[in-house]
Amino acid sequence: MIRRIFITQIFLMIIMASFCQSGVAAIVQSPFLQWETGFNKDKSTFPDRWIPAQVPGAVQLDYARANHWEPHYYAENWKDYLWMEDVYWTYRTKFPKPEMGVGEKLFFVSKGIDYEFEIWLNGEKLFYQEGMFTAVNLDLTGSLAEENELLIRIYPAPKIPGFDLNRSQAAQSVKPAVSYGWDWHPRLVPLGIWDETALEIRKNSYIDDFYTHYQLDDDLTHADITVFAQGNGLEGKRFEWVLHDPDKKLIVQEKGIISSDNLVSVTMEKPKLWWPHDHGNQPLYSSEIKIFDGEGKMVDEKKHTVGFRRVRLVMNKGLWQEDIPYPKTRNKPPITMEVNGRSIFSKGTNWVNPEIFPGTITADRYQELLDLAVEANFNMLRVWGGGIVNKESFYEKCNEMGILVWTEFPLACNNYIGTEEYLRILEQESHSIIKRLRKHPSNAIWSGGNELFNNWSGMTDQSLALRLLNSQCYILDPQTPFIPTSPIYGMGHGNYIFRDFDGKTEVYQWMPRSNSTAYTEFGMPGPSPVEILESIIPAEELFPPMPGTSWESHHAFKAWVGDTWLMKDMLIDYFGEPESLEELVANGQWIQCEGYKCIYEEARRQKPWCSMALNWCYNEPWPTAANNSLINYPSKPKPAFYAVSESCRPVLASARIQKFSWETGEKFTVGLFLLNDQYEEIGAGKMTVFLQSGNEKIEIGSWNYSGTRPNQNLEGPLVETVLPDFLPGKMTLAVEVEGHPEWNSEYVLLKY
Amino acid sequence: MIRRIFITQIFLMIIMASFCQSGVAAIVQSPFLQWETGFNKDKSTFPDRWIPAQVPGAVQLDYARANHWEPHYYAENWKDYLWMEDVYWTYRTKFPKPEMGVGEKLFFVSKGIDYEFEIWLNGEKLFYQEGMFTAVNLDLTGSLAEENELLIRIYPAPKIPGFDLNRSQAAQSVKPAVSYGWDWHPRLVPLGIWDETALEIRKNSYIDDFYTHYQLDDDLTHADITVFAQGNGLEGKRFEWVLHDPDKKLIVQEKGIISSDNLVSVTMEKPKLWWPHDHGNQPLYSSEIKIFDGEGKMVDEKKHTVGFRRVRLVMNKGLWQEDIPYPKTRNKPPITMEVNGRSIFSKGTNWVNPEIFPGTITADRYQELLDLAVEANFNMLRVWGGGIVNKESFYEKCNEMGILVWTEFPLACNNYIGTEEYLRILEQESHSIIKRLRKHPSNAIWSGGNELFNNWSGMTDQSLALRLLNSQCYILDPQTPFIPTSPIYGMGHGNYIFRDFDGKTEVYQWMPRSNSTAYTEFGMPGPSPVEILESIIPAEELFPPMPGTSWESHHAFKAWVGDTWLMKDMLIDYFGEPESLEELVANGQWIQCEGYKCIYEEARRQKPWCSMALNWCYNEPWPTAANNSLINYPSKPKPAFYAVSESCRPVLASARIQKFSWETGEKFTVGLFLLNDQYEEIGAGKMTVFLQSGNEKIEIGSWNYSGTRPNQNLEGPLVETVLPDFLPGKMTLAVEVEGHPEWNSEYVLLKY
Repeated sequence: MIRRIFITQIFLMIIMASFCQSGVAAIVQSPFLQWETGFNKDKSTFPDRWIPAQVPGAVQLDYARANHWEPHYYAENWKDYLWMEDVYWTYRTKFPKPEMGVGEKLFFVSKGIDYEFEIWLNGEKLFYQEGMFTAVNLDLTGSLAEENELLIRIYPAPKIPGFDLNRSQAAQSVKPAVSYGWDWHPRLVPLGIWDETALEIRKNSYIDDFYTHYQLDDDLTHADITVFAQGNGLEGKRFEWVLHDPDKKLIVQEKGIISSDNLVSVTMEKPKLWWPHDHGNQPLYSSEIKIFDGEGKMVDEKKHTVGFRRVRLVMNKGLWQEDIPYPKTRNKPPITMEVNGRSIFSKGTNWVNPEIFPGTITADRYQELLDLAVEANFNMLRVWGGGIVNKESFYEKCNEMGILVWTEFPLACNNYIGTEEYLRILEQESHSIIKRLRKHPSNAIWSGGNELFNNWSGMTDQSLALRLLNSQCYILDPQTPFIPTSPIYGMGHGNYIFRDFDGKTEVYQWMPRSNSTAYTEFGMPGPSPVEILESIIPAEELFPPMPGTSWESHHAFKAWVGDTWLMKDMLIDYFGEPESLEELVANGQWIQCEGYKCIYEEARRQKPWCSMALNWCYNEPWPTAANNSLINYPSKPKPAFYAVSESCRPVLASARIQKFSWETGEKFTVGLFLLNDQYEEIGAGKMTVFLQSGNEKIEIGSWNYSGTRPNQNLEGPLVETVLPDFLPGKMTLAVEVEGHPEWNSEYVLLKY
Repeated sequence: MIRRIFITQIFLMIIMASFCQSGVAAIVQSPFLQWETGFNKDKSTFPDRWIPAQVPGAVQLDYARANHWEPHYYAENWKDYLWMEDVYWTYRTKFPKPEMGVGEKLFFVSKGIDYEFEIWLNGEKLFYQEGMFTAVNLDLTGSLAEENELLIRIYPAPKIPGFDLNRSQAAQSVKPAVSYGWDWHPRLVPLGIWDETALEIRKNSYIDDFYTHYQLDDDLTHADITVFAQGNGLEGKRFEWVLHDPDKKLIVQEKGIISSDNLVSVTMEKPKLWWPHDHGNQPLYSSEIKIFDGEGKMVDEKKHTVGFRRVRLVMNKGLWQEDIPYPKTRNKPPITMEVNGRSIFSKGTNWVNPEIFPGTITADRYQELLDLAVEANFNMLRVWGGGIVNKESFYEKCNEMGILVWTEFPLACNNYIGTEEYLRILEQESHSIIKRLRKHPSNAIWSGGNELFNNWSGMTDQSLALRLLNSQCYILDPQTPFIPTSPIYGMGHGNYIFRDFDGKTEVYQWMPRSNSTAYTEFGMPGPSPVEILESIIPAEELFPPMPGTSWESHHAFKAWVGDTWLMKDMLIDYFGEPESLEELVANGQWIQCEGYKCIYEEARRQKPWCSMALNWCYNEPWPTAANNSLINYPSKPKPAFYAVSESCRPVLASARIQKFSWETGEKFTVGLFLLNDQYEEIGAGKMTVFLQSGNEKIEIGSWNYSGTRPNQNLEGPLVETVLPDFLPGKMTLAVEVEGHPEWNSEYVLLKY
């Protein structure tokens, strides 16, 4: 048990926190230990100048704050930070010895220190670790003085010597690769204490890890529950374990004497099942363990929530029936998410770090972004392997909100060679990550990382790093699916543009020809709104946008291949030279909206062969000038966000469109669909198709559709017309459903 | 240490053997314990009638022997054995208590008992195990009397209740599926003691497992060696470890006191490297451990051979460059075998059980078949997952002979659902298999099993059984490649016929259009020679072959799809109604020869995109009437064996042929190749192409080829002619290489 009574008589305070899992000892956010930081160029000494530090945070932000720098996201300011990745930073805090009872111990605990570090107390080096995802639980007791100085020396950012200044430098560390520079992320490599950190007084007996494992039987009516606890001095102690249902009603209570890690095995009847938000409720049970000493005094307690669900990756319907000629290769692997026996279409997005410096991500930021994910009708987030593994509050909110999380280990677009050193750190980090996240019902897929089986990475099924991750996930969390990377065979990544660079093929043409089993990345770039552009680009550079300006370092030019991400040439080709920044932005956002609608809806039309649509990307870690994201930094939806939200409604009328720009007299053809992802039948009805320009609205066809079974789409007729002599500009294709205006859809096309 | 002094004063004797690895205590083959067996229908009693039993062997063979049955392979005799799989068999042996010193123990040891069994001593049940691949090491000491009766009760063959009488019954056990019936194997499910079995006197301290692990550095000039030993009473004992080179010269010697399983870590310079026979020598080192007690007396010793090699699966050349359009899926996985840094083309075959009853497989049988494999120019054997994991002598010979072994776990063509019970047995069995085989340099690939990712099996990357196997191999033997099954993505299985059943496409046409990265199964059926047919088919059924006779139960009719395996209809279509059995057999064997030559050589022409050609299958477990095998039971090569041997020469002239049967005046076109798998350059030269019929031999073209680099093929010109008016019958295409008659090739085609 953690004592929650603090040293109040001294100028610095100690936070009491329960680490590694939400326990009874609630995190006390204030008052904080007082931290300072400083840097020097080598390891022979410690800094002689100190500045105030925020914990959690990042040394770069502390330095910028102390020196009154302008925001790192304005203009080219980010370049000023580059040198900071190559020096030694040291955190310092001072505290008096707290009052402790007999047998009590003082621990330094941190959920995450980024990336390689030493911990010193009173001039003595007590600890060294490489790895930012393994919590520190360091017993300081033996080295305590009356007045104490705690130092945390952070090493320079890990880099493979001699490699270019890009992500390849990260290929022998378990440091997220994105901060080494990406096509939507500047090079800015965070360092420092990035998650909750405190001093903790513990009894001699305490729990380090508490885990309530369950396995549901085939018909989901029984849960075989096994309760594990590991820690110090637990053997022979009395325990009491209780499980409460979501209404706080006591469901199971077990008592006993601890003789092994496995405390309890019980079978529970009729667990209330946890569902993603678009398929049901999120009943969360509470599992709680208390440990008592010989005198009956409680010495520790922990609790965590439990959501009962069974997640599997099952074969997409039709995959087993695919006709493979001799010589026969394998069938494609499964990628349909099945929750509690129900195959669902996964609609969602690729989540990236919401901040360049993850130490500054707050629970509130997670909340804002996750609220929007539900608004977008997303049931799945792929947490992309180029970024961090998110903090506990992220998963806690996803548990509560019914969002499925695909968690990738921090490997991306590199060949992570399985050297002994690398595998040792990867094993340590993945072990910590899996043990932390396996408790969360929202955590639904493990993935080794991003695009590792593509030729720009060069990893294969033989790569030891991926075999290690599969093995660790199998041992620690076998009931959660594992895939080595995305894409695996049959899945697709890309494309990321509205129209090919040769101008020949638009998304409207290539997407209906695709037959991926899952679209787990696809992008559609759009510019940021004017007010954001004004906040990051000096006024004199704002219009017209040009390469070599802050537009470029904010990813509008030369970000990826071709004319990315502003797509200025393409926009001019469609719409002519823009007269204002506002016009340019409006045109780019229009394209982004329609492109995304096309892909999401076409992927859904390909159900059940296709079972997943996750765009690249959801959010962004700093304000970009143009990006594939749906949401601008920090959490401002673009117009495309609302367009995608419409395309992801559980039920909607959907139109397959042939192309974007039209001329009078052309044959205009549109394919009609009723898309239904809900597990409810839909009765027969009628949808009518209109073309609209200004005040003119012409009916061009209709479809009397039959009913459809739960989770089944309907394909309707092709509607044809000759395009009338509309005025140039926007032309809206509207599909209206009789009696169900909430299923209506609109597509805005370009009339020349 | 195992005492090798025996109880000679009594009628029954005890074999002393060193189990689990070849140790200093050589296996004494005689005298044997005297065994008997008998059966009864349930577990409530033991048999009351006993017959002599051979150990190792099979209860079915004991019963047949005792009842003077005709061979199981003659006519329909195999059907008489069916009932035996459903009863309880018990082995019995009696022995007096041996003389043992203070602290010595008597162990019952068996390398394999098939499949689920109990061991009783003097009326007391001491042991139960499910699984035939985990050795038994049972301490009998505490239950010994002056006169002892040891019983081994074998349970009925494992079956999933209610399933059809075929391989599907094996899908929840680690029992090889083949014996439940296959298209070349009758239903005959072996039961009994199938590997070396004895009583053993041990000191109180003994070694159970001894393993010399090494890892070669990148340039293969240093081996980091770690010596492990596990056993009983080893801690605190003195050890001596020595490594001798192939010339018995002492290379390393280390002494110490045992404090953990890891005894020694040393680096050795310049190890002599082990190669497959067609690329180098097979230097085998000897690693030996001795354990001494406090008085300096040796209490145990073990040794095993070590072959230093690095095996990897690396990307086939060109795979990373494959142009994948958006949406991009993954690149295909690697399947080129790299040994000691050299990419080699794997030529070989699929090995099946050489006996229906694996207890009767001897080291001599392995030797005969492996000698033939070298004669066939094979460097790789895929030990197919439908059969057993072979005995130690198989791997020892492959070590000595330089044959690479691809070892599959016993899963084949079923969906092995990951129930808790199944995974527990699979973990036990795979653990035993990996720990045994990881010592052998010949063991080069682990595979989860056969065709598990195809729709007739229904397993996927998510199957827990395959994740378990990958995890176990990663933990116990990470340096050896693991693939979940064959085929994986890009590899091909099949086809298994010379001509499609619709008569439209021959192997000559489909094979050049294929682009598999490896052909790991492909078949070409051929009838067995007349003398074998006469030994298995009653005289009155011999000619003409008809369905519903012993031809059918020996796989000539209705074995697989279509007209398999005799292909009688196709043969009549090509050659007309045969007038004799001899003519039919000759025609079928001709087709088999030419079909196999076409596939092996075409696969080699597709190098480096293709890197492997392994036909289905090498041998057979009983005499078939017709089969894809190259070798008839027990080890008699078919003509196709010699044809394949020619096609697998390291260097040869090779012709790409358009079709099998020809008429006068047709345009005859042949593509010329020089195939070179050796790592030596070939100088410029000339090859000339002839067509020959009877005594007529016409030159139709030639090719002055340039030199070629090591391991590189050359593609030559197309040679064209108008087919002359040859007599009907055999027409030979001969390609002759000036100065290198050993590279000449011949193809026998049909002239109408």
